[in-house]
Amino acid sequence: MSLRITALAGGIGGARFIRGLLAHLRDHYPDGAGGTAAEVTVIGNTGDDIWMHGIKVCPDLDTVMYTLGDGIEESQGWGRRDESFTVKAELAEYGAGPEWFGLGDRDLATHLVRTRLLTAGRTLSEVTDELCQRWKPGVRLIPMSDQRVETHVIVDEPEGARTAMHFQEWWVRYRASLPAHGFVMVGIDDAQPAPGVVEAIRGCDVLLLPPSNPVVSIGSILSVPGIREAVGTTSAPVIGVSPIIGGAPVRGMADACLTAIDVETSCVAVAAHYGSRAHGGLLDGWLIDSTDATFVGDIESLGIRCRAVPLFMTDVAATALMASDALALADETT
Amino acid sequence: MSLRITALAGGIGGARFIRGLLAHLRDHYPDGAGGTAAEVTVIGNTGDDIWMHGIKVCPDLDTVMYTLGDGIEESQGWGRRDESFTVKAELAEYGAGPEWFGLGDRDLATHLVRTRLLTAGRTLSEVTDELCQRWKPGVRLIPMSDQRVETHVIVDEPEGARTAMHFQEWWVRYRASLPAHGFVMVGIDDAQPAPGVVEAIRGCDVLLLPPSNPVVSIGSILSVPGIREAVGTTSAPVIGVSPIIGGAPVRGMADACLTAIDVETSCVAVAAHYGSRAHGGLLDGWLIDSTDATFVGDIESLGIRCRAVPLFMTDVAATALMASDALALADETT
Repeated sequence: MSLRITALAGGIGGARFIRGLLAHLRDHYPDGAGGTAAEVTVIGNTGDDIWMHGIKVCPDLDTVMYTLGDGIEESQGWGRRDESFTVKAELAEYGAGPEWFGLGDRDLATHLVRTRLLTAGRTLSEVTDELCQRWKPGVRLIPMSDQRVETHVIVDEPEGARTAMHFQEWWVRYRASLPAHGFVMVGIDDAQPAPGVVEAIRGCDVLLLPPSNPVVSIGSILSVPGIREAVGTTSAPVIGVSPIIGGAPVRGMADACLTAIDVETSCVAVAAHYGSRAHGGLLDGWLIDSTDATFVGDIESLGIRCRAVPLFMTDVAATALMASDALALADETT
Repeated sequence: MSLRITALAGGIGGARFIRGLLAHLRDHYPDGAGGTAAEVTVIGNTGDDIWMHGIKVCPDLDTVMYTLGDGIEESQGWGRRDESFTVKAELAEYGAGPEWFGLGDRDLATHLVRTRLLTAGRTLSEVTDELCQRWKPGVRLIPMSDQRVETHVIVDEPEGARTAMHFQEWWVRYRASLPAHGFVMVGIDDAQPAPGVVEAIRGCDVLLLPPSNPVVSIGSILSVPGIREAVGTTSAPVIGVSPIIGGAPVRGMADACLTAIDVETSCVAVAAHYGSRAHGGLLDGWLIDSTDATFVGDIESLGIRCRAVPLFMTDVAATALMASDALALADETT
């Protein structure tokens, strides 16, 4: 039976890691036709999803789809290459904001197709499958849930009042600069894992947690009732890749999210936050960056096997090596 | 009290005529601030409206709004100037048609704003008001109805089966080349005139029927229960401008529409189709083109006062003269 790998993924970090994973697999588990014989399933975060101008935007699913489908704007890591913003400028002429959301013309077509299919009664999983017909990402991409779940952030507004705002507003408009007091996942109690999610977690040979945001990406996925339990009880080794190097997030503003939930921004604290499977947590193994090698002992003392390897995803080749290291660590734990 | 003019209007022909009317009024009924003291109300056809990709497109309302708001692509008479088609091309990549509908990026923003407001519970009249805040067309633009009404065309498909298709498909995709056996206005029985429509018809000093399509533009407006009656009984003179010159439509494919309802494509036949108010019809006066001057007697014998003047809307100045002639004819009939 072919190697089955499942990964949970947020946006940019997850998408790039999986692109590297696929590059590794094409070389080491080739299918003889230029692809890989391994089966990769990606469970995407939908907590960032937002309805905007009456259309459904799924930033993380699209980042995965565009990145793996060679449509991503590489320089920023999200959105479409050769993007234009004509519609956004026209919406602004009507006074229809928000100004802070970079809704591109090419990207908009994706949202229009998605919204139309959702409105016609299709589930988000079915719609995602349909969109992937075009992008051929080389993985099976499943949203964490077909139900609407939206991450909101508890913040103090600049004027001082405590309020909750959609994650996108906090992240994109305020660049996570308003101190967050916590996150609320609206709709999470009524959400179920999308069809195939639990099976992909339980039925894989290796489960990977890429270097995505531990709170609002991986954390959101784990919040869907049933998913954390599936991760905790899968027979596959669970290997995480630290998004924190040298006490700071590699990119993005994960530190602001970690601070909000009282977790230190360090590769050790994030490992502890996920916890060791031996002690009721999630991780069998944890990759940290070579520059953090001094912490290997601390992490192993948590009951998590740890290796220090280069974790900067400077290009696809470097990322493929990271993925290779993650799979090697999985082998070590079994 | 200031001069109050109401016009029924379809797309290009109606919009251009009203632009000429406004130019005339600015010169002859100035408000001292560069505009006109006359109050012009335009009742727009919405029978061409179509839902596409989950968004509501109102081609005729938008043509009026863009033409009067200086946003129109003059060379084609519809759509936005400096338009691009990025979203449409991307939709095609997803296999999301129809290919034949020229959905521009700038135009799309209008439809998105409209759809969002409609979905939020606003009426089409209210939404049209809102869109006009941006375009400042210099008229009050009211859709004929707030209810959804769609013109469908009974045709024989190329394969031979009789079917009905949305007017836009017949008009844009087939360029009205499939012989039409008739028109069905889906939803018309449940439609009411939008707020202000009947009042604008009854309360004006002159009611104009611009050179719009007599069947699918003016005819659609007149089909809304209550509107034909209001036109027939208003105390204002009702003056029409022939869209037919020399036995052919000036532009568009009105001949195909007239043929479908067994009306000859001539300025006389269209006048007879509208009918004389003296005999239960709609018209007090009818402007025909100078080249059709030989038909003045035929039309007057129908009980409709007729004048032959230049009717080619070659530019705004020429159109302003046409509008002036229409108002002069209104004066003659009172």
